[in-house]
Amino acid sequence: MKADKLLFGAAYYDEYLPEDRLETDMEMMEKAGINLIRIAESTWSTWEPQDGVFDFTHLHRMLSCSQKHGIQVIVGTPTYAVPTWLVRKYPDILTETHAGPERYGRRQNMDIAHPMYLKHAERLIRRLMEEVQPYSHVIGFQLDNETKSYDTCSTYAQKQFVTYIRDLFHDDLDLMNRAWGLDYWSNRIDSWEDFPDVRGTINASLGAAYQKFQRKLVTDFLAWQRDLVASCARPDQFITHNFDYDWIGHSYGMQPEVDQWEAAKALTVAGCDIYHPSAQDLTGKEIAFGGAIARSLKKDNYLVLETQAQGNHGWLSYPGQLRMQAFSHLANGANAVEYWHWHSIHNAIESYWKGVLSHNLKENATYREVCRIGADFAEHGTHLVNLKKHCAVGILLDNVSLDALRWFSIPGGPSYNEIFRWVFDSLYEMNVECDILSPNDIDLFSQYKLIITPALYSVSDELTAALKRYVETGGVLLSTFKTAVADRMLKIYHDDLPHGLTEVFGMTYDQFTDAVHVGLQKETGNCVHHWMELLLPEQSETLDRYDHPHWGDYAAITGHRFGQGYAAYLGCYTDSDVLKKLLAFLCAKAGIPMEEAVYPLVVRRGTNGLQKEIIYYFNYSETTMETVYHGPDARVLLAGQETVPSVSVKDRDKLTLHGWDFLILEEI
Amino acid sequence: MKADKLLFGAAYYDEYLPEDRLETDMEMMEKAGINLIRIAESTWSTWEPQDGVFDFTHLHRMLSCSQKHGIQVIVGTPTYAVPTWLVRKYPDILTETHAGPERYGRRQNMDIAHPMYLKHAERLIRRLMEEVQPYSHVIGFQLDNETKSYDTCSTYAQKQFVTYIRDLFHDDLDLMNRAWGLDYWSNRIDSWEDFPDVRGTINASLGAAYQKFQRKLVTDFLAWQRDLVASCARPDQFITHNFDYDWIGHSYGMQPEVDQWEAAKALTVAGCDIYHPSAQDLTGKEIAFGGAIARSLKKDNYLVLETQAQGNHGWLSYPGQLRMQAFSHLANGANAVEYWHWHSIHNAIESYWKGVLSHNLKENATYREVCRIGADFAEHGTHLVNLKKHCAVGILLDNVSLDALRWFSIPGGPSYNEIFRWVFDSLYEMNVECDILSPNDIDLFSQYKLIITPALYSVSDELTAALKRYVETGGVLLSTFKTAVADRMLKIYHDDLPHGLTEVFGMTYDQFTDAVHVGLQKETGNCVHHWMELLLPEQSETLDRYDHPHWGDYAAITGHRFGQGYAAYLGCYTDSDVLKKLLAFLCAKAGIPMEEAVYPLVVRRGTNGLQKEIIYYFNYSETTMETVYHGPDARVLLAGQETVPSVSVKDRDKLTLHGWDFLILEEI
Amino acid sequence: MKADKLLFGAAYYDEYLPEDRLETDMEMMEKAGINLIRIAESTWSTWEPQDGVFDFTHLHRMLSCSQKHGIQVIVGTPTYAVPTWLVRKYPDILTETHAGPERYGRRQNMDIAHPMYLKHAERLIRRLMEEVQPYSHVIGFQLDNETKSYDTCSTYAQKQFVTYIRDLFHDDLDLMNRAWGLDYWSNRIDSWEDFPDVRGTINASLGAAYQKFQRKLVTDFLAWQRDLVASCARPDQFITHNFDYDWIGHSYGMQPEVDQWEAAKALTVAGCDIYHPSAQDLTGKEIAFGGAIARSLKKDNYLVLETQAQGNHGWLSYPGQLRMQAFSHLANGANAVEYWHWHSIHNAIESYWKGVLSHNLKENATYREVCRIGADFAEHGTHLVNLKKHCAVGILLDNVSLDALRWFSIPGGPSYNEIFRWVFDSLYEMNVECDILSPNDIDLFSQYKLIITPALYSVSDELTAALKRYVETGGVLLSTFKTAVADRMLKIYHDDLPHGLTEVFGMTYDQFTDAVHVGLQKETGNCVHHWMELLLPEQSETLDRYDHPHWGDYAAITGHRFGQGYAAYLGCYTDSDVLKKLLAFLCAKAGIPMEEAVYPLVVRRGTNGLQKEIIYYFNYSETTMETVYHGPDARVLLAGQETVPSVSVKDRDKLTLHGWDFLILEEI
Repeated sequence: MKADKLLFGAAYYDEYLPEDRLETDMEMMEKAGINLIRIAESTWSTWEPQDGVFDFTHLHRMLSCSQKHGIQVIVGTPTYAVPTWLVRKYPDILTETHAGPERYGRRQNMDIAHPMYLKHAERLIRRLMEEVQPYSHVIGFQLDNETKSYDTCSTYAQKQFVTYIRDLFHDDLDLMNRAWGLDYWSNRIDSWEDFPDVRGTINASLGAAYQKFQRKLVTDFLAWQRDLVASCARPDQFITHNFDYDWIGHSYGMQPEVDQWEAAKALTVAGCDIYHPSAQDLTGKEIAFGGAIARSLKKDNYLVLETQAQGNHGWLSYPGQLRMQAFSHLANGANAVEYWHWHSIHNAIESYWKGVLSHNLKENATYREVCRIGADFAEHGTHLVNLKKHCAVGILLDNVSLDALRWFSIPGGPSYNEIFRWVFDSLYEMNVECDILSPNDIDLFSQYKLIITPALYSVSDELTAALKRYVETGGVLLSTFKTAVADRMLKIYHDDLPHGLTEVFGMTYDQFTDAVHVGLQKETGNCVHHWMELLLPEQSETLDRYDHPHWGDYAAITGHRFGQGYAAYLGCYTDSDVLKKLLAFLCAKAGIPMEEAVYPLVVRRGTNGLQKEIIYYFNYSETTMETVYHGPDARVLLAGQETVPSVSVKDRDKLTLHGWDFLILEEI
Repeated sequence: MKADKLLFGAAYYDEYLPEDRLETDMEMMEKAGINLIRIAESTWSTWEPQDGVFDFTHLHRMLSCSQKHGIQVIVGTPTYAVPTWLVRKYPDILTETHAGPERYGRRQNMDIAHPMYLKHAERLIRRLMEEVQPYSHVIGFQLDNETKSYDTCSTYAQKQFVTYIRDLFHDDLDLMNRAWGLDYWSNRIDSWEDFPDVRGTINASLGAAYQKFQRKLVTDFLAWQRDLVASCARPDQFITHNFDYDWIGHSYGMQPEVDQWEAAKALTVAGCDIYHPSAQDLTGKEIAFGGAIARSLKKDNYLVLETQAQGNHGWLSYPGQLRMQAFSHLANGANAVEYWHWHSIHNAIESYWKGVLSHNLKENATYREVCRIGADFAEHGTHLVNLKKHCAVGILLDNVSLDALRWFSIPGGPSYNEIFRWVFDSLYEMNVECDILSPNDIDLFSQYKLIITPALYSVSDELTAALKRYVETGGVLLSTFKTAVADRMLKIYHDDLPHGLTEVFGMTYDQFTDAVHVGLQKETGNCVHHWMELLLPEQSETLDRYDHPHWGDYAAITGHRFGQGYAAYLGCYTDSDVLKKLLAFLCAKAGIPMEEAVYPLVVRRGTNGLQKEIIYYFNYSETTMETVYHGPDARVLLAGQETVPSVSVKDRDKLTLHGWDFLILEEI
Repeated sequence: MKADKLLFGAAYYDEYLPEDRLETDMEMMEKAGINLIRIAESTWSTWEPQDGVFDFTHLHRMLSCSQKHGIQVIVGTPTYAVPTWLVRKYPDILTETHAGPERYGRRQNMDIAHPMYLKHAERLIRRLMEEVQPYSHVIGFQLDNETKSYDTCSTYAQKQFVTYIRDLFHDDLDLMNRAWGLDYWSNRIDSWEDFPDVRGTINASLGAAYQKFQRKLVTDFLAWQRDLVASCARPDQFITHNFDYDWIGHSYGMQPEVDQWEAAKALTVAGCDIYHPSAQDLTGKEIAFGGAIARSLKKDNYLVLETQAQGNHGWLSYPGQLRMQAFSHLANGANAVEYWHWHSIHNAIESYWKGVLSHNLKENATYREVCRIGADFAEHGTHLVNLKKHCAVGILLDNVSLDALRWFSIPGGPSYNEIFRWVFDSLYEMNVECDILSPNDIDLFSQYKLIITPALYSVSDELTAALKRYVETGGVLLSTFKTAVADRMLKIYHDDLPHGLTEVFGMTYDQFTDAVHVGLQKETGNCVHHWMELLLPEQSETLDRYDHPHWGDYAAITGHRFGQGYAAYLGCYTDSDVLKKLLAFLCAKAGIPMEEAVYPLVVRRGTNGLQKEIIYYFNYSETTMETVYHGPDARVLLAGQETVPSVSVKDRDKLTLHGWDFLILEEI
């Protein structure tokens, strides 16, 4: 979706405010350059206080007032929190999870497979769409919010699951028992009626099949909402969804509970929320990986539908950081930056997840910085919107492999997302930009010079064939430990590992162990941690061996020229420095140019809608940093809060960035 | 209640003993100077082994024998543990809590809102009172024991809660929805019938309202028992309750589950239990804060109804410490010291919570020290009983603010009680004695020179007005961070913070964050932790600023002359040393004289019934300490185990205290 | 049971394999010298895929093929995991535990007191025995696997428990209430109908009685299976069980949930599984203690029915270690070493608990080492089988005391098994071999020179009398803290402690505390931890006192010549070095000769079937170690992977062992 301008805004909740200040808020927004609000999601009980009784007062207030102030609107369907009356009527709409029955109170506790939930949700969405229909400044819709299956294990869901499985195995129980290895511990199912509650299973194949089914519930749910919304929307209105990521107190990695590529098929534009550590912990990494995933969903620009203003406790940005964050989003391909949320909330659980305004709802330091960003966006937006990235590196992510590494985790070692972030963050620190690929992106492989598969545990034969073809025809491949171990049902292959790729890597292995006091022969110190595969190079060269009294004969890293390309395999989890050296070696092999600057200086590039190359420089640190510019003449589009460079730069010019500062160049 | 002597005793359980040794025990007690036992609480199944079948054999044995030995008795109502037959009859007397249904076994697991529990409890109490009636040496009654709501969330309790809430909001749902902010996450309740199970709520206002209601259940329960007991008691018999404190393996802070001021209205004299670390960890702090709270309940002396003899594992006192502890209780205003318990128990969960006697029930080192205390009490009691404290400092505690800091805790930072103890313990170490105040003690404010509000998150307008008046008319006020943030329903005020007090402090703030590597400009090191409010002094002086590259312009501590008084605000959680400096500064402002001695020397003062000033000196350390006496001539009433001073002291005399020693002076 | 050869094998599961490779596997086994497989346990659903429908295809395949290859078979009854159809039919076969209801999926989640479980299990066992009957190479049967009660608290189990208790107390409720101290906290039971759900109890006597009853369920269950199996077995077929040990990620100590001595009465030969840390963490300790317990069950050699091949993650042995482990088992008295399992599994929870073969099912490094062990066993087996140990030291273990130390644990301190391992491991490191004794082994006491009771909390008068007799007649006794505290119902004795043994030790105590900064006067540093009893020597000598400002007058270790013997009491938990000194002192007193070598050199001795003394030397370390041989001339039976010594050794010959190496001598 091509945007005509940068969108800048905040979620807004007239419903929550302790007094009528709608006009005041809109004036403050307008003054700040905010041109977008997101409304309506999560407030079902406000729109329908009793079964079939509707009240859209707040909706119309917000729509009328925003229209008056020239602020556009995204309307969210409010289905991710259910009203009290609905639960009283159908108590089992509160779902059952692995942890037992849910209680009323929080959001995202309902059974999205429950027919009465769906029936009531549909009625409300249709009514909402009717109400919204007259307003021309509603530019798009958000389906639900951060939808997941909420681990529903309800009777409805489990029945659907059995049907789905019967279909998958063509009603052949023997096929299922064999594929899943159910003889083990007497888990066989020899009649469909015997299918046990999935929640107790110790069979990873069955368990992961259920997790995949739960992701399908999400895909189906969003497609169903899309159909409802699309049937009432205008052609110029977009349909998006606010995808979130794996969460460890902030956005961390791939979302385990949603197949975002499948789910995004329902959308016209991808949206996401990105929350990240700030102040002394701000790195830009979450903004970069979140952006890369969002960009991959529709292979296009995306909307940041939520990000932090003052944020959760401890996230208050240093002066200037909020502005730096906003431009970091743009640098990764975002067309919108929307804060969650405008005002802080005076009650309930997120009272200390603070918005642009503090609880006194007056201008504050954050608001003043927002004003500055708004002015920047207005002034430079046409040069920054619709930035196209052109990455030479692709990282292949996979929900099934993520599930697998939960079922068969590395004891004390990194999770799937930690392995992903180990790879991603190393590239980030090297200023090598990358795209994210899904297992269904086989056709895109040839666009990349280097493809990396971090712990791609589960592979189909189709995928390994594609990777082989990719290397054969000149690509460079890096696979880490735990790549190509099991099939798509998590049955471990019983031929040589890495399955289907031994020829490509010129290497195999059949043993592995944990790494206690283990180094590499070409490195110093105990740089190997938690997991080491004992690689047996056959045709491959040994890039490094383990440094250990008993495992020193085994290779740790191998490389192999295969066809026109090159395939490296990294058999162990190492310090980031070791990985970076290997990545640099492979980038060189692949002919990928390296930036002179390295983290905490961050460089991001892309082509804007005017077909000009845009280069962002960020200094993610407290101290002043310098680098040298290489490239054609460029003009300084925008400088950060402290730097005052000359108006243009030439090849080999020195660039100076103060702490937490940034610089945007546009090639002339 | 004026006591005619010091009470010294132990809980006694003839029921539990492995052999008949009642006569032996009473002889040993008499020899030890024990003049009080507490009996009967917690042994319902002994008195009523089957429904309506009563057996008071043990009761009469204990009453007769104690009478013979001149030992007075407190009889406890035995309602805090339910018999097996009652649970079989009404299984749901075992209550449901947030954690789910209770199981039979432990005490304090019943639904105190259950009508059949109450009915059976009433019958037993009436019967017990009849049995006890003839014994003149029963000096008082204890209602139940350490009563709490046990987190009851039963149907009975939740129904009562809805009734209580309808009443609170005059049946106006809109008022409730607005006051509690229930629009958030679709939590609105638009029909009283829709009121959901409270246990899942994420709304702090609703959640805290339920916690307040649970405290009311306790208040009502004790009042109901008081009425039952009072109707059968003689006028000379007192009615007390054994209040306990927040528990972290020992008494720690304010009891979250009871509004002790409200509950104490049912009593004629306050009672409490105090358990504390001992041996190398003995500080006297728990004895002091527990005493201060107990003193505040009836604004009078109190009874220590339980404290440790040998105590739990690891609490065995060093020789002399038990005696020091007994006098520490007196020094804080106790009129009774009662051990839990006389003998150690040979079965069940508290077998290693040891009494005065060990399991072999013979004289031991602890018993020998008890004998010495008994003799001291007998000899000096008339000079030590009914000690009146006269504190210039008041600390304001509040259950609602405590709840609030659980709902909105400082991540990784101190809890409400930790903040209270940070303040209290600093004063303790400075030998500044203090009283505890409740939000209802407004009329008493003017008696104090310095009032401190640690994290007084929730304030009514009435209270802020009273604090303002207090400063205006000459008082010194110290408020810490998180004071005056929300109303009594935990809705955050939407005007400037601290709500209602910005004029008093001459300061406001609208942002805060966590404190990572933060100091103060007048202090060394990173002395600020977890929480920092970015104070914006307006009329106030800045007592100190943050030492931080980005927050250094903000004040951390402000002070403001307002009217006749002075108001300081401490915006961050600091090392104790920083707090002590501020407290010393404010004591000077308030004209509060300081002791020369500081912790581990502890000084406590009061006026005895003979209108003489009593001064206690304790050395809470292993090593010999010295200080200088300032004041009129005084005689040495009692010296500890090792010190032999002269019989009297004069102004500027040097006082020497050996390790774990004490000294009691009476001004002449 | 006298074995005619060493058994060497692996568990085998044709059912689980991804392709038909039975013939290949048996060929590989034969080549490796494997002469035994264990089959059938845990695969009920394979044999009976639907209620009453049987399919023994895999069984006959395995039996026929193994017979052809000369490989003997142990058949396990497959009752420790239940099929889906059985659970659908009787959902409550999934039991209720303290943690609530079980879910389907894992093994060992059923109610072994459930009549329909037992009925269906019986039918299957009978059918299986019929099928197996024709095969002469089936040498024995394993009853179930690692049977425990699985904490069943089902209605069936609790009803049986009440019956058992009524019987125990001759239907006398008063007796029970007194014995268990149920007056405490109103826990009395005054009608059998009132007996509450045991799961909530806080009464250790009741709780431990239920744990004992649960162990009885296991004993009864195995006896019932034995009867079933024995009725169909040939006289030459043995009956065994795979006992496991307390588990902390590997075998750790005594199994709390089984009275293995009672349960072993059902067997003709004891079996066990031993899993242990490996690689850098290999010590041989688990092999030694596990062997000692297994040896004690039938006072005979035992079968290691399961031990690790590649094992769980991180256990991959260094080259040579697997062989060292196999001989370590023999050195402790094992007649069989069986791997769990032959092949790695491609699905389900134990996919990474790897067998001899890796997932590709080809020869690998582990297989090659197994081949070497097989050849060793074949060559030297007649000299190594049926090794008889002759230990001078006995350690007395007790399930009831173990339970007690869970109910009354030492805060922050060692558990019962940690105390056992502290004693056992100290002896192991001193190369003092020991047997394990049960409280029923009174008649064997006189065979030992030194008996140790680690934390023997619960003692009967019969047992203390036996210990007294033992010392009186010349034995040396060492009791640690927490010995002889309570009766067999965990009621603490109310006479002087250690109950019944004060005369023997010439010592008593009545107080104890935790140990903070405490040493011993003859040792350096704070060598005392967690627990210290304040010993009052009467007739005893004081071997050491506490080093502490207040407890220094109390003894920490006492010794007492009593009758012909000597009794030492260690009142505190100390560093291992302190314990070792005391053990050396007592060994000297008892006339037990000490090895010159100490850990990491490990020496094990025994007499083989040819009445020759066998001496094993192991080097459990990375570095080369030396020691001196003392004894008659001996021939080198076998040397480890690197050492090449001369063919025989003489008194005072130097022995050199490389890292992870071993040496077996046979006296000439």
